[in-house]
Amino acid sequence: MTDYRTLRVALLGAGAVGSQVADLLLKHGDELADRAGAKLELAGIAVRNLDGKRDADLPRELFTTDAETLIVGSDIVIELMGGIEPARTQVLHAIASGADVVTANKALLATHGSEVFEAADQVGAEVYYEAAAAGAIPIIRPLRDSLAGDRVVRIMGIVNGTTNYILDRMDTEGADFADVLAQAQALGYAEADPTADVEGYDAAQKAAILASLAFHTTVPLDAVHREGITSVDAAMIESARHAGYVIKLLAVCERLTADDGSESISVRVYPALVERTHPLASVHGANNAVFVQAEAAGDLMFYGAGAGGVQTASAVLGDVVSAARRHIAGGVGVGESTRANLPAVPIGHVITRYQITLEVDDQPGVLATVAGILSEGRVSIATVEQTVIEADENTQTGGSARLVIGTHKAREQDLSETVERLAASGVVERVVSVLRVEGN
Amino acid sequence: MTDYRTLRVALLGAGAVGSQVADLLLKHGDELADRAGAKLELAGIAVRNLDGKRDADLPRELFTTDAETLIVGSDIVIELMGGIEPARTQVLHAIASGADVVTANKALLATHGSEVFEAADQVGAEVYYEAAAAGAIPIIRPLRDSLAGDRVVRIMGIVNGTTNYILDRMDTEGADFADVLAQAQALGYAEADPTADVEGYDAAQKAAILASLAFHTTVPLDAVHREGITSVDAAMIESARHAGYVIKLLAVCERLTADDGSESISVRVYPALVERTHPLASVHGANNAVFVQAEAAGDLMFYGAGAGGVQTASAVLGDVVSAARRHIAGGVGVGESTRANLPAVPIGHVITRYQITLEVDDQPGVLATVAGILSEGRVSIATVEQTVIEADENTQTGGSARLVIGTHKAREQDLSETVERLAASGVVERVVSVLRVEGN
Repeated sequence: MTDYRTLRVALLGAGAVGSQVADLLLKHGDELADRAGAKLELAGIAVRNLDGKRDADLPRELFTTDAETLIVGSDIVIELMGGIEPARTQVLHAIASGADVVTANKALLATHGSEVFEAADQVGAEVYYEAAAAGAIPIIRPLRDSLAGDRVVRIMGIVNGTTNYILDRMDTEGADFADVLAQAQALGYAEADPTADVEGYDAAQKAAILASLAFHTTVPLDAVHREGITSVDAAMIESARHAGYVIKLLAVCERLTADDGSESISVRVYPALVERTHPLASVHGANNAVFVQAEAAGDLMFYGAGAGGVQTASAVLGDVVSAARRHIAGGVGVGESTRANLPAVPIGHVITRYQITLEVDDQPGVLATVAGILSEGRVSIATVEQTVIEADENTQTGGSARLVIGTHKAREQDLSETVERLAASGVVERVVSVLRVEGN
Repeated sequence: MTDYRTLRVALLGAGAVGSQVADLLLKHGDELADRAGAKLELAGIAVRNLDGKRDADLPRELFTTDAETLIVGSDIVIELMGGIEPARTQVLHAIASGADVVTANKALLATHGSEVFEAADQVGAEVYYEAAAAGAIPIIRPLRDSLAGDRVVRIMGIVNGTTNYILDRMDTEGADFADVLAQAQALGYAEADPTADVEGYDAAQKAAILASLAFHTTVPLDAVHREGITSVDAAMIESARHAGYVIKLLAVCERLTADDGSESISVRVYPALVERTHPLASVHGANNAVFVQAEAAGDLMFYGAGAGGVQTASAVLGDVVSAARRHIAGGVGVGESTRANLPAVPIGHVITRYQITLEVDDQPGVLATVAGILSEGRVSIATVEQTVIEADENTQTGGSARLVIGTHKAREQDLSETVERLAASGVVERVVSVLRVEGN
């Protein structure tokens, strides 16, 4: 075997991903050395509790509760603790100690990314985070490097496996949200507290990371508009299917160009209607996919497992090898440019298509009233479908009708004000749902 | 605007891709400077003929026929001439002059890759070639970097747009190869001389590049088994459809592990049957996709436009920005490891599934004879379908029958020897087709 220089690797965290990373580092050491051009010595694994249960059989002597000491003298620090603290403190400590950092911590990057990247820039360290955006799918390098000479126009990502699993089962089985969530929890696809997934917090963190890279702009988490999937019910899914759509929780990152040529971006997470013929519609189960539209490259899609310990470990180890190669090459940081600094617009400025479902009085003139309100609100109707839901059997009037309206592109603020006016118009009994339609 | 250092960029070639690269470099200069951290000055464009027709309106004074002089003093040389010579000489000249090289030249890399990479290694230069493998699809960096800590098990790629366009139209229209090829030529989807595409030469070059990266092994072009699509006819497509398959020209790169644990690889290009539910089956038109299976990451797919001037230009410019960042960072080469050096096995060692279509005498005992020959040849039958094609109307015997046999996994050499014995058995009138089945 070639006589390689040894790099000292510190691992923080030994959960589902951390255990697999440690296992693969130990098992494939020789092969990784050949790839990296350096021997990767796992110096230790910092954990909170030495007696915790691990997913892999790891040498007891590697474990320590003293992350701070472990970090000192390490060339590469892998942070897989998750959460903001103490992850933030230890990552900054690692950077200050001269180590490169590999992390899968989307919460940390989405909230303290600027602080972390600036600290790294100052000392010439590098922060790798392929595992933070869409599990094992290589999306960071394509966005940062491969598309660096192009202009990304739009990203539409299915970036949360739990919600895709739930929506996919609701779609295939006609089941209701609560039932599928309970099953997903029983099967381990959803956490006991599913809030981060089903309310879109996890997807919003990933959207902030993807948008930052794609638009060379620091996107703070609070610039991301976020809606979850808890209000999606079986009737909405069925109605979507009827209209040729499937409902997906999408992270949409979009470049907007004003009439004067000035540019801004919109970053948003919400359940949206996607045409069944769109490549994203066939992303099933807990899989993830990121659909990228770029000016020159056209449409690209990246597909794979969005989560899972061993899958995510693959992305982490790819970063470890990259960090090792950089160490051996003696190079300073290649870094990302965030010099574009495009402003992020609020959700009200977003322009997209909508599907509005209303329950209205089944009376003559109601459709005219609804159409009039939409027109006044600058919302142009593309399709209308009216179905009677509980008409009086004798008169065929006096009951209710369901009105499904597909709009042309409209401004979100116009749309929401118009929906408010519809709700208050006297002829609308109930606004059943308002969903955005994404994908051209 | 920030005061950037200027990097001198030389462009060799101004065809479909070169014109777009020059156009984008000039048009998006400021934005690219922000991304790269350096001003990219297009110093000149070397062409054979100064008066050639260009796809973009480019300043006349940039053109020169003297590539050799243009290269000297350049920081980055973009080689888009195509072909082996003079591309090889100029690329080596650029490396010797201290430039980094960006190329989309798959023919050069597949045949003289080792020479080029070794020359670059010796002087610490870098060779970028994202555009050489699957057009605008970012696949090089994912394979080289993102999956560097994983073990790629198999790649199945649709890497030639022309043949995918032809096979897709044959599939959707039931048309014959020659007709669709003629139409494709009329529409500009296929060259006047379509040999490189339809005989699989182009795909074989890309397969060699992908396999080299995925398996960290130098794969010479002559280690790639290659078959084209000229023998695929409407009847084969129809028969594939009937069995739930679609025919795709696949580049298959596979890691093989022997019983003693020793590893080798197989790299092959041929028309194969793919189940219609497989993600690759829904890659339509001239699009490309690369399906990657890795031990830890699981299944990944990368999808996008496989060719086209502006799409490929996107990949080239991504490489230019990477090269510029490396220059600014002052780093030496990060390089690829080709240290695994796995041997490539001949096609006879490949193990896969097959669909054998035979015309046989429609006589009692024929199926037993055929089954016996298969069994002797260590080819295990998974499915059989027999249909009468021209039976004698009175006796229902004496005519011919069509036998479609799906096999379990078999060794190619066993299979082909068995097919030869079938052909010589006396009961088989004609071996209609033998197709591999890929995808689990």
